Order: sequence, then C-alpha cells, then structure tokens
Amino acid sequence: MGTYMDVHHGFEGITGEQLRAAHQADLDNEKKEGVHFERAWADPESGTVYCLSTGPSKEAVQRVHEVAGHKADEIHEVRIEV
Amino acid sequence: MGTYMDVHHGFEGITGEQLRAAHQADLDNEKKEGVHFERAWADPESGTVYCLSTGPSKEAVQRVHEVAGHKADEIHEVRIEV
Repeated sequence: MGTYMDVHHGFEGITGEQLRAAHQADLDNEKKEGVHFERAWADPESGTVYCLSTGPSKEAVQRVHEVAGHKADEIHEVRIEV
Repeated sequence: MGTYMDVHHGFEGITGEQLRAAHQADLDNEKKEGVHFERAWADPESGTVYCLSTGPSKEAVQRVHEVAGHKADEIHEVRIEV
C-alpha cells in the first residue's frame, strides 16, 4: 500500500459543495480498487485541487478518479511523510 | 487564518530524515509569523514536497520557509477542504 498526493487543475471557482460531491464520488468508487481517499483541498482561485489517498498503486488511484469523472493531472506517490 | 498547500520541486532522493529535518526547521521558525506547519509529504522520485500549513497569509508561510532555507515554488491557499 502506498500514499498518494494527486493534483487536478482547471477547477477555478469550485465551491465547497462541489468539492464534497467530487470527494463523495471518489468514496463511492474506491472500494473495488482497494483505494481510500482521505482528504481533499481546493484553491478556487488557481483552480487547483489536491487529494490525499492510500492504495495499491498510482494506476488504481487514477482509475477511481476516472470512474468518478475527474481524472487527475498528476499523481505522486509520497513515500515519506511527517 | 487560512490553510495553505505549498509545493517544492528539486528534492529528488530526499530521505525521511531530511524531510523531518526540513519540517523541524519550519517548526523552529514558524511562531513569530503565526504560522503552523501541520504535515509534509515527499515523493523522492519526482523530487516533489508538499507542505500543509495554517497561517495569516501566503507571504507569512513563505517567510518561514525562506528563513528555514527552502523557499516554496508554489503556495496555494486552499479555502475548501473535505
């Protein structure tokens, strides 16, 4: 299992409700991939969204995002954390 | 008070010990700026480091990172989180 930080661009103006709905769509689709989306943060000004997840691989994380309708632009395995 | 996600590039090969030392340098310098660095994550392969903090402004977050010797490449105020 790894920990992943992924980044989405193009979400200028995203609202709290939209972020919660997008995160819920991830939660609804994560189980079969063995992924869990823990937290998400959005900067509506720059349109950037960060998601923190755990799972078996980058590809599994991306598959959940794709099924949920919002493919990530970057996914980094963050092997180290404090 | 805002919440911030900042990004550093160029940390290819960073170790757990180096990340902990860098985070400690932030903690040692954050008080006078009213900033608190909560967590940090690193991807040694791509050399990317993400830091999550709270504070009065982006500029205050950057000043702490500068004094600690590692200016951030990007700082986003993440006004929304789940």
